Order: sequence, then structure tokens, then C-alpha cells
Amino acid sequence: MTSEAHSMKHHHQPWAGYQPRHFRWEVSADGKVGSITLNRPERKNPLTFDSYAELRDLFRGLVYANDIKVVLLAGAGGNFCSGGDVHEIIGPLTRMSMPELLAFTRMTGDLVKAMRACPQPIVAAVDGVCAGAGAMMALAADMRLGTPETRTAFLFTRVGLAGADMGACTLLPRMIGQGRASDLLYTGRAMSAEEGLAWGFFNALHAPQALHEAGAQLAAQLAAGPTFAHGMTKKLLHQEWNMGLDEAIEAEAQAQAICMQTHDFRRAYEAFVAKRKPVFEGD
Amino acid sequence: MTSEAHSMKHHHQPWAGYQPRHFRWEVSADGKVGSITLNRPERKNPLTFDSYAELRDLFRGLVYANDIKVVLLAGAGGNFCSGGDVHEIIGPLTRMSMPELLAFTRMTGDLVKAMRACPQPIVAAVDGVCAGAGAMMALAADMRLGTPETRTAFLFTRVGLAGADMGACTLLPRMIGQGRASDLLYTGRAMSAEEGLAWGFFNALHAPQALHEAGAQLAAQLAAGPTFAHGMTKKLLHQEWNMGLDEAIEAEAQAQAICMQTHDFRRAYEAFVAKRKPVFEGD
Amino acid sequence: MTSEAHSMKHHHQPWAGYQPRHFRWEVSADGKVGSITLNRPERKNPLTFDSYAELRDLFRGLVYANDIKVVLLAGAGGNFCSGGDVHEIIGPLTRMSMPELLAFTRMTGDLVKAMRACPQPIVAAVDGVCAGAGAMMALAADMRLGTPETRTAFLFTRVGLAGADMGACTLLPRMIGQGRASDLLYTGRAMSAEEGLAWGFFNALHAPQALHEAGAQLAAQLAAGPTFAHGMTKKLLHQEWNMGLDEAIEAEAQAQAICMQTHDFRRAYEAFVAKRKPVFEGD
Repeated sequence: MTSEAHSMKHHHQPWAGYQPRHFRWEVSADGKVGSITLNRPERKNPLTFDSYAELRDLFRGLVYANDIKVVLLAGAGGNFCSGGDVHEIIGPLTRMSMPELLAFTRMTGDLVKAMRACPQPIVAAVDGVCAGAGAMMALAADMRLGTPETRTAFLFTRVGLAGADMGACTLLPRMIGQGRASDLLYTGRAMSAEEGLAWGFFNALHAPQALHEAGAQLAAQLAAGPTFAHGMTKKLLHQEWNMGLDEAIEAEAQAQAICMQTHDFRRAYEAFVAKRKPVFEGD
Repeated sequence: MTSEAHSMKHHHQPWAGYQPRHFRWEVSADGKVGSITLNRPERKNPLTFDSYAELRDLFRGLVYANDIKVVLLAGAGGNFCSGGDVHEIIGPLTRMSMPELLAFTRMTGDLVKAMRACPQPIVAAVDGVCAGAGAMMALAADMRLGTPETRTAFLFTRVGLAGADMGACTLLPRMIGQGRASDLLYTGRAMSAEEGLAWGFFNALHAPQALHEAGAQLAAQLAAGPTFAHGMTKKLLHQEWNMGLDEAIEAEAQAQAICMQTHDFRRAYEAFVAKRKPVFEGD
Repeated sequence: MTSEAHSMKHHHQPWAGYQPRHFRWEVSADGKVGSITLNRPERKNPLTFDSYAELRDLFRGLVYANDIKVVLLAGAGGNFCSGGDVHEIIGPLTRMSMPELLAFTRMTGDLVKAMRACPQPIVAAVDGVCAGAGAMMALAADMRLGTPETRTAFLFTRVGLAGADMGACTLLPRMIGQGRASDLLYTGRAMSAEEGLAWGFFNALHAPQALHEAGAQLAAQLAAGPTFAHGMTKKLLHQEWNMGLDEAIEAEAQAQAICMQTHDFRRAYEAFVAKRKPVFEGD
């Protein structure tokens, strides 16, 4: 590794200085975990045209971030996200032309695409209200932690729209099953935290006061893993969305062969032989 | 809206007068919910060549029904449906030529295709025996309510056939998972109501005497929603069956932009601003 | 049926004499169930280059086996399989060229492809350790029985690799849901038996001392069914992995029409009419 490359990896932390306008961004002490906090707690952290766009651009930029290894996504003040703001988004939408509407629905969809395209696993820490586009951001994360208080509603139908929003009709059935997804998308009702855990939407529930720490610990654990390989796992989970099984197996044969030439694979083997814990560096 | 169109929507109720020969059909007082009741209770409501065809034709016709917004599907006399009648269907099938057999299997498959292609969400109220093609009709519905007594069996293997019938090998794994579906399809055993609820086949269980009312209430709730948008949700759930995630997101961007130009979307916004409950009209 | 064909079916049992070098193979008294037992219990039954290849070749050969109707897969000594041996596989892999690595990952993938391509349903009886490639073999089976002691880990990430191995990124989400699969693949943690049952990975749990008998009973039950039709069920579950719903329904119409011309279908009908239990012969 050249000195420049080394420097790029370990000393520069360009993302530590990133200052978004519409949400908080913090980077962990080791520079590996980037935390997004939706931060309009007085309104339960709604999204606006500008915050959608800024989130999309952040996740697009993370494709090229060599330092950030995991993303933690949360909301301030005891709620995750109430979705598109009624006054700032829904009102204007009722007055838009079709090209303007499509530009908007594509932008929100692009946020989900960007979340699935960046190599960093995304952990969503979801308390309180998790609704509409907020529920879709949680769904687009790789893992979800909730609290007993979390209420998750794909409530598009409540505002007169289809459940088909930002990929809900393909993401939600894969997460909780086709029948339960149909219930939530047709009725717009809130899924309780208990249902969310039993159905596989949440990976675990924690007390509200323990949620942030649990999310940070999970993010740190993932960041200490073989992060290049994590990025490959995420990419293949995406690539195989509609592949045949035989084709998926060939795709994984190629992907895993690539991972077998990483230093992290050798590090794990050497640590095993030496009976110590491997230290992964993500290359 | 022209007076003629208005008339078509609100005053004509052509489906109220529909009189099928092989099952009961009733339309709710407001004209929005059409109820199908399989009605040969002395034989647990089996299907025959003629009833398959008539059901298929009904669901095909519902594509053009502007009045009917939701379909409720049930069986008379404490059972849902025992599937293809042994004497009236299985016997004749054992004597058919290959073109005749394929015409039959395509007809039964066409029933499922028609159930998935009509824009109305279908609620199945499933009590007692739910077997074979009956289980497939329940599976092809959008939501399913059961009772503690319901026993659901994809029993094709018991009559010497494959579990591959009417789409079972793709519908059932999406509903309850690949492993549980394999169990039911290879063994033909009955799934208990408790399993069906835990696995996501049933959306809820009700006491047998409360089932019909629960189904009617859910149907009425869906019919009071933005029914054009419901139809779009159903269409996208179908379209995305084997799309890539990125392609699904684009499909939803287009579908939701269409819904954003409906009156129901504006009605919901105006109701919200006026702090009242929206009244949707399905356009 | 010609005398030769009859002889081929009932009197020859070529697989009874099969003697693999790297695992045990036994055939049930009636010749219908072939049992594979991974048999290096002192190391928890790891896989080696040679045992991967021999297993792949066995499953490929079973495509042409007319006598074997079901496969039972288990491990000796209270564990299922610890996956690729660290010394015999992982060490050498760290020193291989890219073409050699790809040849290896394709070979392991070919084992899964062969398990899904043979017409015999595969029952995995999984006790104790079930890890890495061992977990993938369990996942590639049609049904899985566990014990309260079984611990299943897709631990590729622990050795510095991606969760994308042998089809895990498509098989595991279909079995237990996308969110739970992400948890297991990113963290490499062990799934408890209780989780595996609740999530649909295991079809049932049995006490360790009852596991083998339960597996043998299930295998015998499947072998007594219409085995040609079982093979069609398995084939369609595979073919429909990424088909549209309408296309899947047509595929099943064709597959089931074929099954309707089998003797087993007629046998089932005649048994029903005579009020006796059908005896299937698999043709």
C-alpha cells in the first residue's frame, strides 16, 4: 500500500467534517461509524424536499467513503421519523404537474436506491413514531432495532395514496411476508413493536433509554468486522433480488472468490492458527 | 365529471343484479362490497368444472366494475371450501387426454390469475375446511381471516399430484417462508389455525360466530379507503413479483405519481388541514 | 411396463451398494431412502475438498436414481457439520490464485445446485453444530429437523468473508425473511434452535435422542408418497425462484397436467372410491 493510500485510509477522515443542513451527522471516535440523526423533534422529525435530497446525496457519497464503515440512522427526541411533512410536502404535491410529481417520487425512490447501493451496512434505531417515508427508511436499512414503544405505519393509504411508495411493495413482503405486508399496505394501520419483532421487521427491541447504545454497539461490532466483505454481502443481497437460484450461486462464487483474496481473509486464518481474535482492517 | 359518468359511478349498480349459478353473490347496501359465498355446504363447498369457470369469469369481469370496490370470499355452513370435487372433477380427470388436462389446469390457474388481476382487494373469511383448490383461493386473496377451527391443507400430494398447482410453489413460500411451504406441499398435511396465524397466512383469527362480521367490517374499511390507490397497490404487488429492487422503485415512482393526481389525494390533504376525517370516493 | 423396466425399478438397488469414501451411505430396507451421514465426529464433521466433491457427485448421480426416493442428511456424534475445515480448506485457500479460488467456490456452489436439482426431497436432521458450509447444506435441504441444542451459524464473516456463499443471500432470506437473514449474515452469530423454529428455518425440533428416528420417519413418509409428483414439486419450487406470478401459474398448469397422467393419480382416485388408503408407486 502506498503511503498516500495509507494516509487516505487511516488519517484523513473527510466525513468527520461533513456538516449537513437538514439533519445531524456525527462520526465515532475511531472514524468508522457515521450517525445520522433526523432532528426536528418538535414535529417528530418529518422529511422535506430538501432533507430527502440531502439524505440521498449523503448515501450516494458514502459509496466512495473509505473511512465510514457502518451507518447508524436514528431520530431525535424519542421518535424516528413522521414521514413527509404534511404542510411542506403534501400540500405542494397536490398542486404539482405530472412531471413535477414524478420528479418527486423518483427522488424519494432514489433515497432508497442510494441506501441499498452504498457498501456500508445501515443500522436503524427506531423509537416512537416511524411513519410513511420514515417507515420506508427504516425498511431500507439492513438491520432494525426498536423499542416496545415503536409504532411503524406504512400509512400512504391514509393520505389517499397507494402502498406502492419507495419500493414498499417489494421490500415489505420480503421482510415480513406477503400477507402481513398486504395488511399494513392496504389498511395503513400501525404495526406494534411486538408484531414487528415477531414478524422479522425488528431484529431486537430495547428499552427506549438503551436504544441508542444498543444501536451504537451493533454498529461498532459491524465496523470491527471484515468491512469489505460486508459490502459484498450487501451488494449480493441486492443483486440477487430477482435472480434464479443457480445464477445467484454463480454470482456468489465470484463474489466470495474476490473476498478470498483480501487481507482480512488471511488475517482471520492466521489469527485462528495463533489462537487469537482476528483484527480486521477492511481490505 | 359528466353527469353520465357520475350516474355510472353512483346510481347504476350492475353488480347488484348479478346472479351466478354456482355460488351466492351479494352486494352490500352501499354497493361497494361484493360477497361470494361458496354454497354447497352439505359437501363442504367443493368446486366443479362449472364453478371454477364461473368464478374465473366473475373475477375477470370485476376488472371493469366501477361500483364494486372490495370482494369478500367465504363458504357456507362453517367450511370454506373442500377443493375440487372427487367425483365431479378428479374422476373425470383420470380419464382425460393431455390437451384436456392442460385445459383444466390452465382454467384453475386462470382463476388465480383473475383474482390477482382485478383491482379489488379480496378478503377471504376462512372457517373449517380449507383444502386443495380452496386453500389456493384463500392464498390468492389479499388478506385472510380464520377461526381457531380452520384447517388449511394444500393436499395435492394426497391425491397423487404435485404441490405445484395454481401457483402454490410461488405464492405459499412468499406468504409463510420456503421451509414451511415445503413442509405443507410435500406432506399435504393440514396447517392448524394457530400455525397459520404465527406464520403469516392468516392476518387474524376470530371466533366462528364472529368471522363473517369481521370479514364484512374489514371489507367495509377497505371500501371506505382510496380505492383507486388500493387497486394500484394490488397491481404493483403483482408487477413486482420478480422485479429487481431498483426497477420496483421506479415502477412505484410512476404508480404513486399517478395516484398523486387523484381527487382522493387532495381530499385527504384538505381534510387534514381542516382537522376532519377524509371521505374518499375512489377517484 | 416391460419386465426390464420393472426389474430396474424394484429388484436392482444399485445405490444400496454405493460406497463413498468421505461419508457414510446407507439405504433403508425398502431401498427408497438413502442416508448420508457426515462422519468425522471427532472434528464435528468438517468438509474437505474431497468430501465436497464426493457429495456433489452423489447428488448429481441421484438425478438418475430410480430407486432412491428421499435423501436423509445427518452428522455423526451429536453434531451436523462444522463447515469447511480450517486446516484442510481455509489454509490452502489463503495461498491460491484467483482461478483456483473460483474453481473452489464454484465447486461448493455446485453442491447446492446439485442438492436442488435432484428430484428427491432432502430431509436434514440437524443436531449440535451446524456452521458455515454445513449450515448451507442444511439450508439447501427441503426440510430441516433440529434439536433444542442445535446452533446454526452462517459464520463466513468470522473468517473475513462475505455472507454471500453457496447461495446464502438468496436462500436464507426466502427461508426466514430478509431482516433476520441480514442479521445472521452480517454478524455471523449463531441462530438458536428456538429462533430457527420460530423463524421457519426448522420444521420441527426433537430431543437429540429422538432426532434420527424423526428424520427417518419423515423420510419414509415422503418415500411412501407419490414420488414422481414430489420431484415435480421440487423442480417447480426451483424453476419459479424468479418467475412472475402469471408465468409460474402457467408452469404449474403444465407440470400438474403431466402429473395427472401418472398412475399414482389414478391410484389415489381408485383408493378414494374404494374407501382405502392409496398405495403410491412413484410412476
